[in-house]
Amino acid sequence: MSEVFTVKSIFRNYQVQLIDGFEKSIFQHSMQNSFILVDQNLLALFEKQFASILPQYHHISIEANETNKTMDYCQNLIIRLIELGIRKNSTIIAVGGGIVQDIAAFTSSILFRGVKWMFYPTTLLAQADSCIGSKTSINLGNKKNLVGSFYPPSQVYIDAAFLNSLPVADLKSGIGEILHYYIYADSPLIRPLMDNYEDVLATPGLFVEHIKASLAIKKEVIEKDEFDRGERNKFNYGHTFGHAIETMTHYGVSHGQAVTLGMDIANYISEKMGYMDKETFNAMHSLLLKNLPEINLRQYNLNTYFRALSKDKKNIENDLVCILATENGSLKKIQMPFNDNLKNLIISYFEGYAC
Amino acid sequence: MSEVFTVKSIFRNYQVQLIDGFEKSIFQHSMQNSFILVDQNLLALFEKQFASILPQYHHISIEANETNKTMDYCQNLIIRLIELGIRKNSTIIAVGGGIVQDIAAFTSSILFRGVKWMFYPTTLLAQADSCIGSKTSINLGNKKNLVGSFYPPSQVYIDAAFLNSLPVADLKSGIGEILHYYIYADSPLIRPLMDNYEDVLATPGLFVEHIKASLAIKKEVIEKDEFDRGERNKFNYGHTFGHAIETMTHYGVSHGQAVTLGMDIANYISEKMGYMDKETFNAMHSLLLKNLPEINLRQYNLNTYFRALSKDKKNIENDLVCILATENGSLKKIQMPFNDNLKNLIISYFEGYAC
Repeated sequence: MSEVFTVKSIFRNYQVQLIDGFEKSIFQHSMQNSFILVDQNLLALFEKQFASILPQYHHISIEANETNKTMDYCQNLIIRLIELGIRKNSTIIAVGGGIVQDIAAFTSSILFRGVKWMFYPTTLLAQADSCIGSKTSINLGNKKNLVGSFYPPSQVYIDAAFLNSLPVADLKSGIGEILHYYIYADSPLIRPLMDNYEDVLATPGLFVEHIKASLAIKKEVIEKDEFDRGERNKFNYGHTFGHAIETMTHYGVSHGQAVTLGMDIANYISEKMGYMDKETFNAMHSLLLKNLPEINLRQYNLNTYFRALSKDKKNIENDLVCILATENGSLKKIQMPFNDNLKNLIISYFEGYAC
Repeated sequence: MSEVFTVKSIFRNYQVQLIDGFEKSIFQHSMQNSFILVDQNLLALFEKQFASILPQYHHISIEANETNKTMDYCQNLIIRLIELGIRKNSTIIAVGGGIVQDIAAFTSSILFRGVKWMFYPTTLLAQADSCIGSKTSINLGNKKNLVGSFYPPSQVYIDAAFLNSLPVADLKSGIGEILHYYIYADSPLIRPLMDNYEDVLATPGLFVEHIKASLAIKKEVIEKDEFDRGERNKFNYGHTFGHAIETMTHYGVSHGQAVTLGMDIANYISEKMGYMDKETFNAMHSLLLKNLPEINLRQYNLNTYFRALSKDKKNIENDLVCILATENGSLKKIQMPFNDNLKNLIISYFEGYAC
């Protein structure tokens, strides 16, 4: 994959470009007709760059926390954008991670029934995964990501320099999603990534090839199934069991590490149900090991975990719907009764888990 | 056009079916997995039918007024639907006019990033126009239709029997939109409709052919330009000047009659600007005449009208962007400076208007 590639979308095709120096790139956009939404934490981290950009552009800083990922917040944002003079032919420029992306993309998708937005993802998770694929997610009440839309950016600019500002926990979170794409595609890059795990974490520039490789895998699938009605479902691998880990730990585990654990749980269930042999499970477990969250699963109430699983929005009636890896490593959508048998498997995984 | 036709959509193709007896049709949908949203005014008008349906289905009645066409209302609706047990694979069934359509379609478009919805339009405007085309519109603060999305239904069922319950004003509103499609397509049906105007109003069953003809015209365009980026813009004919009439009169004039007046104003400007000769203007004026609103334009403050026009969301910078009919009757998108010349033309139209 070159430094620029195009993602085909039902809404509009868009380019993803690897760049060096985000401030130069931002200055290419109209000062009158662009509206920058920026994670306010970045303002101090990249003080010099933003000091040159922001005074010349309409801009709003976003406090990037889950509490603000709501329809109310987006409504207030729209009111402020209107006050700043936004029009149907204006462009929103989002600079931040997944939360800023969700707020900017959802807002862009509904304002005037859609305005253009451009995205400068600043976290590994956003750069290697969420920046393409069109999904937007908004919380409602205590339900995370209950509402949302499909609405791609018009352009994505990836500046790996942002990764230098990230805490290691955020890099590990990004690795979780990269791993799940690598397993989906049976990518040869999974070994180099995990064998050099500590080096890569210490030298974020090394992530660039993994960002490109992850996006290349995702691109191929979302171009065929943007609305997540078929093949794209498989990217839910690790997510059903991972989301419930996030809920159970009150988001004490990052999304990507929860997904890593979710993949391990899915593999465990797959092995016990006879879809995968023990050897494959062990091999995959040893690959995932370094990115598993360091928590004591035994300290949590399993009923909280079961309740979260039972409420997964992809479930059908009382059946759990999830993606399992099978014998040859390929992923498969499985619908299974959420009964004592399944619960006992999960209990035994939790009891044996040590990280 | 037969009694069933398919509309091609980027999201999913959907069928429009002319039916006889909506209650039979509703009973074809799953009782467990359907969630009916119904205009509460219909409950008394079609008491017997709803008494047989509603006790067997999850349902919520909607007070169909502009005040409820908000994101807050949709959020509360989502909370109630979740309480009733709605899932990602459930279907929302909307029974009502444009407001119920907007609330149901917007809610369906964002809940779980999209659930299926089916539509039983009950007003002439919804049956002959808005039921196809994917647009949803939601008010924000005092800004009408500021937000929205594109999200088609999975199925549309048109029962003309609903029209018998409508006040004449609502029928005239629907005629406004039918007229604008007829002018777009230069349809031969415009004469029979306007020559038999009083008869048609008195016998709503006579609308069926006009509903089918309008939808056929709209279908052809939205299939090519669902997102309203090109040809579909022309359906904005009459709307720029019409919306400002609605604002100026505080919605004392119905949407469709405001559009009728908007077309006449657009034609007047077109003639004065040399895009159309006087004869064509007169011929079109005499066609529109019966459906023009009976108001005294001179009693209104023109500054309110100009302010509304200047805020039209389709404007570019300080230019007014609108659709004008030209010499040969074809429609054309025009961008023109919103200057004293244009204002004087509008002043002279208002001064000469008598209906």
